[in-house]
Amino acid sequence: MEFTIRAATLEDCKDISRMILELAEYEKVSDQVKIAQRDLEQDGFSKNPFFHGIIAEVPEHLKSKEDSCMYFFTGHTKVGYSLYFYTYSSWKGRAVYMEDLYVMPEFRGKGIGKALMSKVSQLGLAAGCTQLNFTVLDWNKSSLDFYLKQGCWDVTSDLGYHCMRCEGDALEHLAQGGL
Amino acid sequence: MEFTIRAATLEDCKDISRMILELAEYEKVSDQVKIAQRDLEQDGFSKNPFFHGIIAEVPEHLKSKEDSCMYFFTGHTKVGYSLYFYTYSSWKGRAVYMEDLYVMPEFRGKGIGKALMSKVSQLGLAAGCTQLNFTVLDWNKSSLDFYLKQGCWDVTSDLGYHCMRCEGDALEHLAQGGL
Repeated sequence: MEFTIRAATLEDCKDISRMILELAEYEKVSDQVKIAQRDLEQDGFSKNPFFHGIIAEVPEHLKSKEDSCMYFFTGHTKVGYSLYFYTYSSWKGRAVYMEDLYVMPEFRGKGIGKALMSKVSQLGLAAGCTQLNFTVLDWNKSSLDFYLKQGCWDVTSDLGYHCMRCEGDALEHLAQGGL
Repeated sequence: MEFTIRAATLEDCKDISRMILELAEYEKVSDQVKIAQRDLEQDGFSKNPFFHGIIAEVPEHLKSKEDSCMYFFTGHTKVGYSLYFYTYSSWKGRAVYMEDLYVMPEFRGKGIGKALMSKVSQLGLAAGCTQLNFTVLDWNKSSLDFYLKQGCWDVTSDLGYHCMRCEGDALEHLAQGGL
Protein backbone atom coordinates (compact mmCIF):
# COMPACT_ATOMS: atom_id res chain seq x y z
CA MET A 1 0.00 0.00 0.00
CA GLU A 2 1.16 3.52 -0.82
CA PHE A 3 2.00 5.56 2.29
CA THR A 4 4.52 8.10 3.51
CA ILE A 5 6.21 8.60 6.88
CA ARG A 6 7.03 12.20 7.78
CA ALA A 7 7.74 14.40 10.79
CA ALA A 8 4.61 15.58 12.61
CA THR A 9 3.78 19.28 12.62
CA LEU A 10 1.53 21.48 14.72
CA GLU A 11 -1.29 20.84 12.23
CA ASP A 12 -1.18 17.10 12.98
CA CYS A 13 -2.09 17.48 16.65
CA LYS A 14 -5.83 17.04 16.03
CA ASP A 15 -5.22 13.69 14.31
CA ILE A 16 -2.61 12.60 16.85
CA SER A 17 -5.09 13.39 19.63
CA ARG A 18 -7.74 11.29 17.82
CA MET A 19 -5.36 8.37 17.40
CA ILE A 20 -4.15 8.56 21.02
CA LEU A 21 -7.80 8.00 22.00
CA GLU A 22 -8.17 5.14 19.51
CA LEU A 23 -5.02 3.49 20.91
CA ALA A 24 -6.27 3.91 24.48
CA GLU A 25 -9.59 2.33 23.49
CA TYR A 26 -7.70 -0.62 22.00
CA GLU A 27 -5.82 -0.87 25.30
CA LYS A 28 -9.18 -0.60 27.14
CA VAL A 29 -8.16 2.48 29.13
CA SER A 30 -9.62 5.46 27.25
CA ASP A 31 -10.79 6.98 30.57
CA GLN A 32 -7.09 7.45 31.41
CA VAL A 33 -6.43 9.93 28.59
CA LYS A 34 -6.18 13.45 30.01
CA ILE A 35 -4.28 14.95 27.09
CA ALA A 36 -6.06 17.00 24.44
CA GLN A 37 -5.01 18.58 21.15
CA ARG A 38 -4.02 21.81 22.90
CA ASP A 39 -1.62 19.99 25.27
CA LEU A 40 0.07 18.26 22.36
CA GLU A 41 0.46 21.56 20.52
CA GLN A 42 2.02 23.20 23.57
CA ASP A 43 4.20 20.33 24.77
CA GLY A 44 5.44 19.02 21.44
CA PHE A 45 5.79 22.11 19.28
CA SER A 46 7.20 24.82 21.53
CA LYS A 47 10.83 25.81 22.00
CA ASN A 48 11.92 22.88 24.17
CA PRO A 49 9.54 20.10 23.15
CA PHE A 50 8.82 17.24 25.54
CA PHE A 51 8.34 14.84 22.61
CA HIS A 52 8.61 14.48 18.85
CA GLY A 53 6.22 12.77 16.48
CA ILE A 54 6.04 11.11 13.09
CA ILE A 55 2.93 10.52 10.99
CA ALA A 56 1.97 7.78 8.52
CA GLU A 57 -0.15 9.22 5.76
CA VAL A 58 -1.98 7.63 2.80
CA PRO A 59 -3.17 9.39 -0.40
CA GLU A 60 -6.69 10.83 -0.43
CA HIS A 61 -8.11 7.97 -2.53
CA LEU A 62 -6.99 5.44 0.09
CA LYS A 63 -8.41 7.28 3.09
CA SER A 64 -10.07 5.32 5.90
CA LYS A 65 -13.54 3.91 5.32
CA GLU A 66 -14.27 2.75 8.82
CA ASP A 67 -14.57 4.91 11.90
CA SER A 68 -12.45 3.14 14.44
CA CYS A 69 -13.44 5.78 16.99
CA MET A 70 -17.11 6.67 17.33
CA TYR A 71 -16.36 10.35 17.94
CA PHE A 72 -15.10 10.96 14.43
CA PHE A 73 -17.16 10.44 11.30
CA THR A 74 -15.06 11.35 8.25
CA GLY A 75 -12.36 9.35 6.52
CA HIS A 76 -8.76 9.99 7.51
CA THR A 77 -5.54 10.15 5.52
CA LYS A 78 -3.38 10.28 8.68
CA VAL A 79 -3.63 6.64 9.65
CA GLY A 80 -0.75 6.03 12.05
CA TYR A 81 1.72 7.81 14.30
CA SER A 82 4.56 7.39 16.74
CA LEU A 83 5.57 9.71 19.57
CA TYR A 84 9.16 9.47 20.79
CA PHE A 85 11.71 11.39 22.85
CA TYR A 86 15.35 11.10 23.81
CA THR A 87 16.38 9.63 27.16
CA TYR A 88 19.62 8.52 28.79
CA SER A 89 21.01 5.32 30.24
CA SER A 90 23.74 5.86 32.81
CA TRP A 91 25.25 2.57 31.56
CA LYS A 92 24.86 2.89 27.80
CA GLY A 93 24.32 6.60 27.13
CA ARG A 94 21.90 8.17 24.67
CA ALA A 95 18.66 6.32 24.02
CA VAL A 96 15.40 6.92 22.21
CA TYR A 97 12.07 6.03 23.80
CA MET A 98 9.06 5.17 21.67
CA GLU A 99 6.07 6.29 23.73
CA ASP A 100 3.39 5.26 21.22
CA LEU A 101 3.22 3.24 18.03
CA TYR A 102 -0.20 3.08 16.43
CA VAL A 103 -1.77 2.20 13.09
CA MET A 104 -5.54 2.38 12.52
CA PRO A 105 -7.03 -1.16 12.42
CA GLU A 106 -7.99 -1.17 8.73
CA PHE A 107 -4.43 -0.20 7.75
CA ARG A 108 -2.63 -2.90 9.74
CA GLY A 109 -0.65 -5.70 8.14
CA LYS A 110 0.69 -3.43 5.40
CA GLY A 111 4.08 -2.61 6.90
CA ILE A 112 3.08 0.83 8.24
CA GLY A 113 3.83 0.01 11.88
CA LYS A 114 7.20 -1.43 10.97
CA ALA A 115 7.98 1.65 8.83
CA LEU A 116 7.11 3.95 11.75
CA MET A 117 9.28 1.95 14.15
CA SER A 118 12.07 1.84 11.58
CA LYS A 119 11.95 5.64 11.27
CA VAL A 120 12.18 6.11 15.05
CA SER A 121 15.20 3.76 15.03
CA GLN A 122 16.84 5.75 12.22
CA LEU A 123 16.29 9.02 14.04
CA GLY A 124 17.65 7.52 17.26
CA LEU A 125 20.79 6.19 15.60
CA ALA A 126 21.33 9.54 13.85
CA ALA A 127 21.20 11.25 17.28
CA GLY A 128 23.86 8.89 18.64
CA CYS A 129 21.51 6.58 20.54
CA THR A 130 22.47 2.95 21.16
CA GLN A 131 19.08 1.79 22.45
CA LEU A 132 15.43 1.98 21.46
CA ASN A 133 13.20 1.49 24.49
CA PHE A 134 9.43 1.15 24.85
CA THR A 135 6.84 -0.72 26.88
CA VAL A 136 4.28 -3.33 25.89
CA LEU A 137 1.28 -4.65 27.81
CA ASP A 138 1.74 -8.32 28.75
CA TRP A 139 -1.66 -9.31 27.30
CA ASN A 140 -0.85 -7.76 23.91
CA LYS A 141 0.68 -10.95 22.49
CA SER A 142 0.48 -9.93 18.81
CA SER A 143 2.51 -6.75 19.47
CA LEU A 144 4.95 -8.62 21.69
CA ASP A 145 5.49 -11.27 18.99
CA PHE A 146 6.08 -8.52 16.41
CA TYR A 147 8.66 -6.80 18.61
CA LEU A 148 10.45 -10.05 19.47
CA LYS A 149 10.61 -10.93 15.76
CA GLN A 150 12.35 -7.59 15.17
CA GLY A 151 15.08 -8.60 17.62
CA CYS A 152 13.79 -6.62 20.60
CA TRP A 153 14.05 -8.23 24.03
CA ASP A 154 11.92 -8.11 27.16
CA VAL A 155 13.92 -6.33 29.88
CA THR A 156 11.24 -7.03 32.49
CA SER A 157 11.12 -10.79 31.84
CA ASP A 158 14.87 -11.20 31.32
CA LEU A 159 16.30 -8.88 34.00
CA GLY A 160 13.39 -8.25 36.36
CA TYR A 161 12.90 -4.53 35.72
CA HIS A 162 9.64 -3.15 37.06
CA CYS A 163 8.20 0.22 35.98
CA MET A 164 7.35 2.35 39.02
CA ARG A 165 5.28 5.52 39.20
CA CYS A 166 4.47 8.29 41.67
CA GLU A 167 1.67 10.77 40.91
CA GLY A 168 -1.05 12.91 42.43
CA ASP A 169 -0.99 13.40 46.22
CA ALA A 170 1.92 10.95 46.61
CA LEU A 171 4.05 13.05 44.25
CA GLU A 172 3.13 16.24 46.12
CA HIS A 173 4.06 14.59 49.44
CA LEU A 174 7.33 13.35 48.03
CA ALA A 175 8.19 16.85 46.77
CA GLN A 176 7.54 18.12 50.30
CA GLY A 177 10.04 15.69 51.78
CA GLY A 178 8.37 12.29 51.64
CA LEU A 179 6.96 10.00 54.30
CA MET B 1 23.51 14.24 59.23
CA GLU B 2 24.49 17.50 57.58
CA PHE B 3 24.25 17.37 53.79
CA THR B 4 23.19 19.51 50.85
CA ILE B 5 21.40 18.68 47.60
CA ARG B 6 22.37 20.82 44.62
CA ALA B 7 22.33 20.77 40.81
CA ALA B 8 25.22 18.83 39.27
CA THR B 9 27.82 20.72 37.24
CA LEU B 10 30.43 19.69 34.70
CA GLU B 11 32.93 19.33 37.54
CA ASP B 12 30.79 16.62 39.16
CA CYS B 13 31.07 14.21 36.23
CA LYS B 14 34.10 12.41 37.66
CA ASP B 15 32.22 11.64 40.88
CA ILE B 16 28.98 10.78 39.06
CA SER B 17 30.96 8.37 36.88
CA ARG B 18 32.45 6.77 40.02
CA MET B 19 29.04 6.43 41.66
CA ILE B 20 27.45 5.01 38.46
CA LEU B 21 30.05 2.22 38.71
CA GLU B 22 29.37 1.73 42.43
CA LEU B 23 25.62 1.47 41.73
CA ALA B 24 26.23 -1.02 38.90
CA GLU B 25 28.40 -3.12 41.24
CA TYR B 26 25.60 -3.10 43.80
CA GLU B 27 23.25 -4.27 41.02
CA LYS B 28 25.86 -6.88 40.02
CA VAL B 29 26.24 -5.63 36.46
CA SER B 30 29.32 -3.39 36.43
CA ASP B 31 30.45 -5.01 33.15
CA GLN B 32 27.41 -3.33 31.53
CA VAL B 33 28.65 0.23 32.14
CA LYS B 34 29.98 1.70 28.91
CA ILE B 35 29.68 5.34 29.94
CA ALA B 36 32.73 7.28 31.13
CA GLN B 37 33.25 10.75 32.60
CA ARG B 38 33.73 12.23 29.12
CA ASP B 39 30.36 10.92 27.90
CA LEU B 40 28.60 12.42 30.89
CA GLU B 41 30.29 15.77 30.31
CA GLN B 42 29.26 15.79 26.66
CA ASP B 43 25.73 14.40 27.01
CA GLY B 44 24.65 16.18 30.18
CA PHE B 45 26.32 19.57 29.97
CA SER B 46 26.08 20.63 26.34
CA LYS B 47 23.45 22.82 24.70
CA ASN B 48 20.65 20.26 24.53
CA PRO B 49 21.44 17.93 27.42
CA PHE B 50 20.13 14.35 27.38
CA PHE B 51 19.86 14.34 31.19
CA HIS B 52 20.14 16.48 34.30
CA GLY B 53 21.72 15.61 37.62
CA ILE B 54 21.67 16.48 41.29
CA ILE B 55 24.36 15.78 43.85
CA ALA B 56 24.24 15.04 47.59
CA GLU B 57 27.27 16.50 49.31
CA VAL B 58 28.55 16.33 52.89
CA PRO B 59 31.02 18.72 54.59
CA GLU B 60 34.74 17.82 54.41
CA HIS B 61 34.86 16.57 58.01
CA LEU B 62 32.14 14.02 57.24
CA LYS B 63 33.71 12.66 54.07
CA SER B 64 33.59 8.93 53.34
CA LYS B 65 35.91 6.63 55.26
CA GLU B 66 35.25 3.45 53.34
CA ASP B 67 36.05 2.80 49.73
CA SER B 68 32.90 1.26 48.38
CA CYS B 69 34.60 0.94 45.00
CA MET B 70 38.08 -0.59 44.86
CA TYR B 71 39.23 1.75 42.10
CA PHE B 72 39.10 4.84 44.28
CA PHE B 73 41.15 5.33 47.43
CA THR B 74 40.41 8.76 48.86
CA GLY B 75 37.46 9.93 50.89
CA HIS B 76 34.57 11.56 49.08
CA THR B 77 32.31 14.48 49.93
CA LYS B 78 29.98 13.79 47.00
CA VAL B 79 28.15 10.82 48.42
CA GLY B 80 24.96 10.48 46.35
CA TYR B 81 23.36 11.52 43.10
CA SER B 82 20.33 11.25 40.91
CA LEU B 83 20.14 11.54 37.12
CA TYR B 84 16.78 12.49 35.64
CA PHE B 85 15.23 13.77 32.41
CA TYR B 86 11.84 14.89 31.15
CA THR B 87 9.60 12.51 29.22
CA TYR B 88 6.01 12.49 27.98
CA SER B 89 2.95 10.35 28.49
CA SER B 90 0.43 10.55 25.65
CA TRP B 91 -2.27 10.02 28.30
CA LYS B 92 -1.08 12.25 31.13
CA GLY B 93 1.39 14.68 29.55
CA ARG B 94 4.68 15.88 30.99
CA ALA B 95 6.57 13.46 33.21
CA VAL B 96 9.96 13.26 34.88
CA TYR B 97 12.01 10.06 34.77
CA MET B 98 14.50 9.24 37.52
CA GLU B 99 17.19 7.19 35.80
CA ASP B 100 19.38 6.69 38.87
CA LEU B 101 19.09 7.23 42.60
CA TYR B 102 22.21 6.32 44.58
CA VAL B 103 23.68 6.95 48.01
CA MET B 104 27.04 5.48 49.05
CA PRO B 105 26.51 2.58 51.51
CA GLU B 106 28.02 4.27 54.59
CA PHE B 107 25.68 7.27 54.12
CA ARG B 108 22.43 5.32 53.82
CA GLY B 109 19.64 5.52 56.36
CA LYS B 110 20.18 9.25 56.93
CA GLY B 111 17.49 10.61 54.62
CA ILE B 112 19.81 11.44 51.73
CA GLY B 113 18.09 9.14 49.22
CA LYS B 114 14.68 10.52 50.17
CA ALA B 115 16.00 14.09 49.86
CA LEU B 116 17.36 13.36 46.37
CA MET B 117 14.07 11.80 45.28
CA SER B 118 12.15 14.67 46.84
CA LYS B 119 14.25 17.17 44.86
CA VAL B 120 13.59 15.34 41.57
CA SER B 121 9.86 15.42 42.40
CA GLN B 122 10.01 19.16 43.13
CA LEU B 123 11.81 19.84 39.86
CA GLY B 124 9.29 17.69 37.98
CA LEU B 125 6.29 19.46 39.48
CA ALA B 126 7.86 22.85 38.76
CA ALA B 127 8.21 21.82 35.10
CA GLY B 128 4.52 20.90 34.93
CA CYS B 129 4.96 17.13 35.25
CA THR B 130 2.19 15.00 36.74
CA GLN B 131 4.21 11.79 37.05
CA LEU B 132 7.55 10.63 38.40
CA ASN B 133 8.62 7.38 36.71
CA PHE B 134 11.55 5.05 37.34
CA THR B 135 12.40 1.35 37.34
CA VAL B 136 13.39 -1.00 40.13
CA LEU B 137 14.88 -4.50 39.97
CA ASP B 138 12.47 -7.10 41.32
CA TRP B 139 15.10 -8.60 43.68
CA ASN B 140 15.82 -5.20 45.26
CA LYS B 141 13.18 -5.56 47.97
CA SER B 142 14.55 -2.86 50.29
CA SER B 143 14.34 -0.23 47.54
CA LEU B 144 10.92 -1.47 46.43
CA ASP B 145 9.63 -1.25 50.02
CA PHE B 146 11.00 2.29 50.31
CA TYR B 147 9.30 3.38 47.08
CA LEU B 148 5.98 1.76 48.00
CA LYS B 149 6.11 3.49 51.40
CA GLN B 150 6.44 6.81 49.56
CA GLY B 151 3.18 6.11 47.73
CA CYS B 152 4.71 4.93 44.46
CA TRP B 153 3.05 2.04 42.67
CA ASP B 154 4.31 -0.83 40.55
CA VAL B 155 3.03 -0.31 36.99
CA THR B 156 4.44 -3.65 35.85
CA SER B 157 2.75 -5.69 38.60
CA ASP B 158 -0.51 -3.71 38.57
CA LEU B 159 -1.04 -3.13 34.82
CA GLY B 160 1.30 -5.62 33.13
CA TYR B 161 3.71 -3.17 31.53
CA HIS B 162 6.92 -4.77 30.26
CA CYS B 163 10.04 -2.76 29.39
CA MET B 164 11.27 -3.68 25.90
CA ARG B 165 14.59 -2.85 24.27
CA CYS B 166 16.23 -2.98 20.86
CA GLU B 167 19.99 -2.43 20.50
CA GLY B 168 23.08 -3.40 18.52
CA ASP B 169 22.57 -5.29 15.26
CA ALA B 170 18.82 -5.57 15.85
CA LEU B 171 18.53 -1.77 16.06
CA GLU B 172 20.58 -1.36 12.88
CA HIS B 173 18.34 -3.88 11.10
CA LEU B 174 15.23 -2.15 12.31
CA ALA B 175 16.52 1.21 11.07
CA GLN B 176 17.06 -0.41 7.68
CA GLY B 177 13.45 -1.55 7.49
CA GLY B 178 13.15 -4.42 9.94
CA LEU B 179 12.66 -8.15 9.48
